Amino acid sequence: MTEAGQRPSLHWAEIIAVGSELLVPPRLDTTSLVITERLNECGIEVRAKAVVGDRRDDLEAILRAALSRTELVVVCGGLGPTDDDLTRDAVSAVTGRALRERPDIVDGIRQRFAARGARMPEINRRQAMVPDGADVIPNGFGTAPGLWLEHEGRVLLLLPGPPGELKPMVERVVAERLAPMAGAGRLLRRVLRICGCTESEVDERAAPVYSRWLAGPLPISTTVLTSPAQVELHLSVRTPSAAEGQARLDAAAAELAALFGADLFSMDGRALEEVVGRLLRDRGWRIGVAESCTGGLVSGRLTDVAGSSDYVGFNAVCYSNESKTSVLGVPTALIAERGAVSEPVALAMADGIRRRAACEIGIGVTGIAGPTGGSDEKPVGTVVIGVTTGGVRIVRTYRFPTGRARVRLFAAQMALDLARRVLLGVEAGRAFVYAPAAGVRP
Amino acid sequence: MTEAGQRPSLHWAEIIAVGSELLVPPRLDTTSLVITERLNECGIEVRAKAVVGDRRDDLEAILRAALSRTELVVVCGGLGPTDDDLTRDAVSAVTGRALRERPDIVDGIRQRFAARGARMPEINRRQAMVPDGADVIPNGFGTAPGLWLEHEGRVLLLLPGPPGELKPMVERVVAERLAPMAGAGRLLRRVLRICGCTESEVDERAAPVYSRWLAGPLPISTTVLTSPAQVELHLSVRTPSAAEGQARLDAAAAELAALFGADLFSMDGRALEEVVGRLLRDRGWRIGVAESCTGGLVSGRLTDVAGSSDYVGFNAVCYSNESKTSVLGVPTALIAERGAVSEPVALAMADGIRRRAACEIGIGVTGIAGPTGGSDEKPVGTVVIGVTTGGVRIVRTYRFPTGRARVRLFAAQMALDLARRVLLGVEAGRAFVYAPAAGVRP
Repeated sequence: MTEAGQRPSLHWAEIIAVGSELLVPPRLDTTSLVITERLNECGIEVRAKAVVGDRRDDLEAILRAALSRTELVVVCGGLGPTDDDLTRDAVSAVTGRALRERPDIVDGIRQRFAARGARMPEINRRQAMVPDGADVIPNGFGTAPGLWLEHEGRVLLLLPGPPGELKPMVERVVAERLAPMAGAGRLLRRVLRICGCTESEVDERAAPVYSRWLAGPLPISTTVLTSPAQVELHLSVRTPSAAEGQARLDAAAAELAALFGADLFSMDGRALEEVVGRLLRDRGWRIGVAESCTGGLVSGRLTDVAGSSDYVGFNAVCYSNESKTSVLGVPTALIAERGAVSEPVALAMADGIRRRAACEIGIGVTGIAGPTGGSDEKPVGTVVIGVTTGGVRIVRTYRFPTGRARVRLFAAQMALDLARRVLLGVEAGRAFVYAPAAGVRP
Repeated sequence: MTEAGQRPSLHWAEIIAVGSELLVPPRLDTTSLVITERLNECGIEVRAKAVVGDRRDDLEAILRAALSRTELVVVCGGLGPTDDDLTRDAVSAVTGRALRERPDIVDGIRQRFAARGARMPEINRRQAMVPDGADVIPNGFGTAPGLWLEHEGRVLLLLPGPPGELKPMVERVVAERLAPMAGAGRLLRRVLRICGCTESEVDERAAPVYSRWLAGPLPISTTVLTSPAQVELHLSVRTPSAAEGQARLDAAAAELAALFGADLFSMDGRALEEVVGRLLRDRGWRIGVAESCTGGLVSGRLTDVAGSSDYVGFNAVCYSNESKTSVLGVPTALIAERGAVSEPVALAMADGIRRRAACEIGIGVTGIAGPTGGSDEKPVGTVVIGVTTGGVRIVRTYRFPTGRARVRLFAAQMALDLARRVLLGVEAGRAFVYAPAAGVRP
């Protein structure tokens, strides 16, 4: 490697993913996220990214344009052995650097095949072609080596497409080569999570705060992501001092915590089920869940957390009314009189699982996920969640936006959140953003 | 609109998504998938796509390059009212067409605000600026109208970024404007799903078939997507005749069905839980699931299917040994002697839930998801799945690749698959791709 002083200092990057298969709808470009994260961590920001099919003219044009404006261009894919794999040829054409076969790479590929008792097909020699002046980055997980080429003040990094080969290579290249060349600022992130407000409510309350942060000496950028009954705020700050950046993010998180109170449940990226798990562990409590419409989603999330067997013993999915009675002891008369989707039944389910699983806090969830089963009085999307302990009995009726999967996701999230609020000793002040329908509340 | 005959015939498109927030890691570009699907359906293929931040020079360069090579360029985002929203300006600069304010659009935006009892901020006038010669596409869900501009034999389509505004606009534009201009071929797709082979096994067996398809008169392209214990094959064919295309895909699917036998479980895009549901419904059977390590994931998937209450009554998540005994009747001596993760216990769990839920088929899942709890004899990733009916008792021990979430996903998928094979009357011939560890099988 040349001296660090002679090399371009990197602030910006572009990522180009190569392969016609990447343009077919089910494929999401998750690879560029992995690369972006690693680059951001060492202070390099991504300015644009592209996905291009296996057409050499397109790839050359996009590569040429990226090199004309950006210090670091990362190309993923197109390093395989077949005629479709055009990245090496395109780089050679765009930079005017000839490709030469490297015997040591051929040997390495040959050995890889031999280890599996196979002979290297002749076409794999293509993978040993290296543009003049490029460094070879060994690939521990496949035949295509990575390539690092410094050209006219730019860095061109070629990575193999398969994530299992690309990811370890990115880690290594970032640590060994890119981090030392990166600009002064590192990008630090913090993820905060809120349940109990819609995205626009969060925006309305936090917008003045965001603008103050952006105007400050260490500007904080904010990205908002929404999923059912959850708003995620991704804060990021760019600074040469990690300590200063962390302090800035701590202060920002504290400011949002004051603004959103108990609605803000996570300031360190933890998921809701982890937060609930921590609260249970703090109290030495065990939890039981009795689910109808969510069908196991609440239990599934609770047990996603490593070590959850410390506080989960038995959860029941009681889809049928018979099982609500036989397993949870909900009186048949109560179901007949008030309906399976009703506040007394949700509370009886919570009490039932608490008794049955011999635990301190119980959740009961019953509702109409749809698409059928709704009525005027209790339309699809109506979900009742009860949480009980020895001393507290809380029940809420929600009307979630329809769509079976969405109703279930909303319900599972809100059930965990209600349990969290009970554990926190904070009463859930209101039925989220969806006002309980007059006809549904008892 | 001008006559269809005078217009470019569209075969290829590029998609450009605009917005710095789209370059921040948690964001996945799902919008372009929606657009690609709609375009593909009417026979237009996507040749490249790009994501670019709010930098006017970058946007102009990328837009100019796309227009230089591609008939249809779709730009999403950057149509908002603020200075960051640069799409209109960039289009004006690249095409040399001046922007003019359209009073009817200003009126529309003003009315939108008035309906909410608000006054239109002056900056929103920016959204009424239209390049010379562009058609305005009304936006029913937001203030930014879409724009359609035919320029030097190209079509430039500008769409608002928010998915809720973009999706309905794409539907309409494709139906009303793009489909009539599209090339002769429509792209038809078929999704097939396989459980019981790894991706490379599928590839090895199917590669000769793929190449024959590609060489045929109506070539079929294949994309492979893998998730835990599932390989998805996306077949697509481009043809002017929908009937001919469907017939070609039917024949291809039949060929794969013959090749993969019972491993191929879905030829029409149905998920595994839907296939199991259909088999249950066909037999008039009910199912019960007793889960330990999967913690509700199997139950959650089964009940994801609308109408599953017809065949799901009661499922149990028995995390603790006590609940395996008290709820499912697994003898404490059996657990003590063979361990909670053992074939007799998995079978006893399946029998227990079958008795308890009074159903015809039971699944028992018990395993070590990790990260702790493993031993030399039963390392993390060991999962035992039992399926029983009145007449059949099948049990399999698996060793899944580690990672708590991955073990759970593999286990849930394989549990549903084993139930499917029992329902089909097909014995699962082998313990998937992960050879059962000698020490784990009894």
